Amino acid sequence: MALFTFIGSSRGPWHLERLETVTGEGLLWAECLDTRTGSLSDEASTWMLRGTTSNERYVMRAERNRLVAKQEGLGRAGSTRAALIPIRKNPAWWNMTQDERREVFESRSKHIETGLAYLPAIARRLYHCRDLDEPFDFLTWFEYPPEASAAFEELVTRLRGTEEWKFVDREIDIRLVR
Amino acid sequence: MALFTFIGSSRGPWHLERLETVTGEGLLWAECLDTRTGSLSDEASTWMLRGTTSNERYVMRAERNRLVAKQEGLGRAGSTRAALIPIRKNPAWWNMTQDERREVFESRSKHIETGLAYLPAIARRLYHCRDLDEPFDFLTWFEYPPEASAAFEELVTRLRGTEEWKFVDREIDIRLVR
Repeated sequence: MALFTFIGSSRGPWHLERLETVTGEGLLWAECLDTRTGSLSDEASTWMLRGTTSNERYVMRAERNRLVAKQEGLGRAGSTRAALIPIRKNPAWWNMTQDERREVFESRSKHIETGLAYLPAIARRLYHCRDLDEPFDFLTWFEYPPEASAAFEELVTRLRGTEEWKFVDREIDIRLVR
Repeated sequence: MALFTFIGSSRGPWHLERLETVTGEGLLWAECLDTRTGSLSDEASTWMLRGTTSNERYVMRAERNRLVAKQEGLGRAGSTRAALIPIRKNPAWWNMTQDERREVFESRSKHIETGLAYLPAIARRLYHCRDLDEPFDFLTWFEYPPEASAAFEELVTRLRGTEEWKFVDREIDIRLVR
């Protein structure tokens, strides 16, 4: 478990290229993004979003083995493009039992399988914030080289077309460059 | 998602009968316990433990249907006995994938099945705190009438004998009366 704060302000290593409200309430524009460990609250900023790396909730052993074999870490020199996608899911999602959520998430929406297809080019880290006092349930951070930009658009388009995404009631798509 | 703070101090509706360190580091004695909504931090207290009701992590549809059919709520007039059992699980637990944890939790340890056997007498609510900046991973709150006290001892003894409990590296058992 490790807590991180994403800070939107006028300073930081990542510059916002675009901030799009996909679903629900928007988020203010900020010029730059910085990521810091811990829960910060006294920083001058336009917004701060907190999340924790936590444990996996749906991935099974065979899937994790395939992910670990194929994925690469964050911070690769060539990964000068990034996306931060905060999402919130509706009460109907959270009222489902574990097996029902897994059924929608993977059996019908192929969330893990789809992400696997874009590894290792598109690296990904999920932060959980539903149990924190935060406006979103998840923050997903992606890093990729410029040549994977078209593949990244394809990935988010595929995910947004799934049954799982019908449960998303707030989504912001923030694209970054460093 | 609802956040609660359990406050151990000299005031509150529940009086501590006993505080036992089952595993790992202890917790200071307090005379009374109060439960409040929200995350409190400026209260005079011996300790404060925070947790959120969150969503279920392992329960499947068929199991939830059986739980809902049999369980009764907290706050019943006759439930003058309670227990607060904060636990933490070790990294080996959290490093397992969802299917591996479910296998230990239910297929081999029968955690849900065992709890079901003691319903409706022993009412239970689970609070999650692993994603918060807290010393425990879970706080489980139990309420029962005095005549179910022996059954409650049996329930905790059965759970502590399971394979799941081998992953518990800190556990405090607090018994209360009102």
